[in-house]
Amino acid sequence: MSPLQLVDDLQSVLGAEHVRTDDGSRLVYGTDALKKGQPADAVVLPGTTEEVAAVVRLCAEHRIPIVPRGGGTGYTGGAVPTRGGIVISLERMNRILEIDEANLLAVVEPNVVTGDLQDAVEKVGLFYPPDPASLRQSVIGGNVAECAGGPRAFKYGTTKQYVLGLEAVLPTGEIVETGGKVVKNVVGYDLTHLLVGSEGTLAIITKVILRLVPKPPVQETLRATFPSVEAAVNAVTEIIRARVVPAAVELIDGDSLDAVANYLQTRSLAPEGTAAILLVEVDGVPAAVAEEAKRVERALVESGATEVLHARDQADREELWRVRRELSLSLKTLAPLKINHDVVVPKGRIPALFDLVRRLRGEYGLRIPCFGHAGDGNIHVNIMVDPADERQLRNAREAERVLFEGVVALEGSISGEHGIGFSKARFLPIELSADEIALMKRVKAAFDPHGILNPGKIFP
Amino acid sequence: MSPLQLVDDLQSVLGAEHVRTDDGSRLVYGTDALKKGQPADAVVLPGTTEEVAAVVRLCAEHRIPIVPRGGGTGYTGGAVPTRGGIVISLERMNRILEIDEANLLAVVEPNVVTGDLQDAVEKVGLFYPPDPASLRQSVIGGNVAECAGGPRAFKYGTTKQYVLGLEAVLPTGEIVETGGKVVKNVVGYDLTHLLVGSEGTLAIITKVILRLVPKPPVQETLRATFPSVEAAVNAVTEIIRARVVPAAVELIDGDSLDAVANYLQTRSLAPEGTAAILLVEVDGVPAAVAEEAKRVERALVESGATEVLHARDQADREELWRVRRELSLSLKTLAPLKINHDVVVPKGRIPALFDLVRRLRGEYGLRIPCFGHAGDGNIHVNIMVDPADERQLRNAREAERVLFEGVVALEGSISGEHGIGFSKARFLPIELSADEIALMKRVKAAFDPHGILNPGKIFP
Repeated sequence: MSPLQLVDDLQSVLGAEHVRTDDGSRLVYGTDALKKGQPADAVVLPGTTEEVAAVVRLCAEHRIPIVPRGGGTGYTGGAVPTRGGIVISLERMNRILEIDEANLLAVVEPNVVTGDLQDAVEKVGLFYPPDPASLRQSVIGGNVAECAGGPRAFKYGTTKQYVLGLEAVLPTGEIVETGGKVVKNVVGYDLTHLLVGSEGTLAIITKVILRLVPKPPVQETLRATFPSVEAAVNAVTEIIRARVVPAAVELIDGDSLDAVANYLQTRSLAPEGTAAILLVEVDGVPAAVAEEAKRVERALVESGATEVLHARDQADREELWRVRRELSLSLKTLAPLKINHDVVVPKGRIPALFDLVRRLRGEYGLRIPCFGHAGDGNIHVNIMVDPADERQLRNAREAERVLFEGVVALEGSISGEHGIGFSKARFLPIELSADEIALMKRVKAAFDPHGILNPGKIFP
Repeated sequence: MSPLQLVDDLQSVLGAEHVRTDDGSRLVYGTDALKKGQPADAVVLPGTTEEVAAVVRLCAEHRIPIVPRGGGTGYTGGAVPTRGGIVISLERMNRILEIDEANLLAVVEPNVVTGDLQDAVEKVGLFYPPDPASLRQSVIGGNVAECAGGPRAFKYGTTKQYVLGLEAVLPTGEIVETGGKVVKNVVGYDLTHLLVGSEGTLAIITKVILRLVPKPPVQETLRATFPSVEAAVNAVTEIIRARVVPAAVELIDGDSLDAVANYLQTRSLAPEGTAAILLVEVDGVPAAVAEEAKRVERALVESGATEVLHARDQADREELWRVRRELSLSLKTLAPLKINHDVVVPKGRIPALFDLVRRLRGEYGLRIPCFGHAGDGNIHVNIMVDPADERQLRNAREAERVLFEGVVALEGSISGEHGIGFSKARFLPIELSADEIALMKRVKAAFDPHGILNPGKIFP
């Protein structure tokens, strides 16, 4: 049966206005931040969990592929069709249902924008730490499906650490609840954390129970410049040796700084002759922050920082962070295409990762600015390419594979934040053994015996 | 084929001295802290992952049940046979393989005693927070299999939050690795956290990579006495409202205090006429601890504490904690059998849980002292019974079911720490729907198609 033959049934479940088959919708919902994908056959916008389940049961009966979609901000094509089918956009399910101050939790529908939830809980002195760069566009359901990270993950962990429970619709149409409102729960298997990061291939998330923490009352940001990446990474080691866990430790390399200087036509944010800068943020109660900032400064200076700047008030902190925020647009001035990877290595091996990138730059003649979350060893490696230049594109594709092989050899992972989606599926065997992939496929089949949910993702 | 016919093959794999079929071994390895179970047919003691895999392959071929076993300290019979078969004791795999200060992680074999690991990492200024009461007997592999908790879980989380990666042997004999040495890893499904808390029913854990954190330099303990459980729980709410996250918040009720007084023949640790005491511990850098202790004291006093004691040095802190440590032996003076449950409710609902327990005491004429981790809402409800008294035993069994139903109605869970094992399997449908149990069974079959690994556990 073709998906279009289902349209009448879908309309009778959802109402005609929530089933879209026009070319515009099919295209818009057929792409995400990766800018690749295939048009959907149809797009549906359910408003309730029961409606999601009804759509899934219809599709399951007729073996029609379904693709769940949140904010559509993913970098690996997780939310777009690869072989047609029906996109289930959860955009109408966007309410914060509950903020429970006494029990430090929130209950939300999947399409609450992450930044909106943060604002709402901060108003009552609470804090939802995960902060993906897309936090003003991406949504909690998508963050859960991809296990979104961000700079604060070093101290606070990723989305995984904040998901207490889920309501989800299985690809066979049943509605299940996993976990719940308590942090401790050891009854049966932890399906909650199996669903986190499963990229919409196991179930469609329709409700999320999130753990909150008290909002740290003060922050202090330090920016240090270094003559080498090694010195900057040593500083991270020294900070850890001083037993400080900063909220964020961001590293930006010289190539990235040059791009910022070029884009802004000034070196004010990106000092000349600097091989790397570190942005370090500590947070907590005032007395602890003052003490920790002192220890961080000592570690930075002792590791060879040529300059250390401090900022405690919001405006000054934002100015120090500005270089990080300008990065994305700045890199676009280097080449039209950014092949954007989010590899991760044990943090002590970041220098080895940079050695590898240096080698790739030389061997393949590519510009590869790098920046990222040094505390986690999670570095964004951006291979900049002019797609009109076929040789460059081929070199970039080779460099990408060598990068992934090198990262795995360093006991790292080919993705720390963006997931596999369909764009990295072919690289999965670099990191996972055939036995491990076979096991994951058996788990997939336990949830989705007909293989209709988000097909073409994760597995090669 | 009977398990005994495998003995020759097992001996040729492991050496004769590591295969035991004497009655003593069969009995000892046929029981754990639950004091129930069936004798093993044989007990094997592999020394390496490859040996574990070889044993599993032999058993898989002949469809012989296998039961993995760590410290044997579980309360729900997770590590004992229910229908014979071969116990795989991991006691020879007990080495700390690596403590990596720069990357804040440890790599251990499964049978490292939890307290030994804590001691080893604290020597270098690091900290492994999970602290089950059994920490001097239980082992990391068992803690991972059961997702062990403890008092510090409120601030630091349970074992789950510290497991970065695993090596495990599947019930079909393959050796797999999950996760790894990086905190961020979103490549494929999160099998690591599916294995945590799976009670040895999905795979046999042979290596664990654990995340460590800096050791908090100072602690301060406060003990407050209250005229009612409600006042004590209100104090917890006030502490949270003051945006303090203590390392531990332990509540001990009046019945438990009376037992301690009775056991020690003095009221020195358990003041007369007290309905509940709270033990609160804050930790961190000195300035923050001083500030937080002040806020905690204010919250305690404002909630009606009749007395608040402080302790900062180790000896004084131990004296305040002594009442908690004496509890276990004290309760035994009340009745020979302790039916020991570890229910959990959202912490704002602890008063409702105590109301329920009060009703059970009245209706069933039972002594039910309660204590536990108030910050998590995880309360140990101890139904004290003389097993010679059949009517009392029957009442206790009824009370147990009413307790579990009540806890689930309060949006809680029937187990926050001890797991299901075989002793609670019949209660699983109180908490999980038929669809949820069916899904978990499909996941089990994805790992264990022949159903040979730890049969009779979790599922009714």
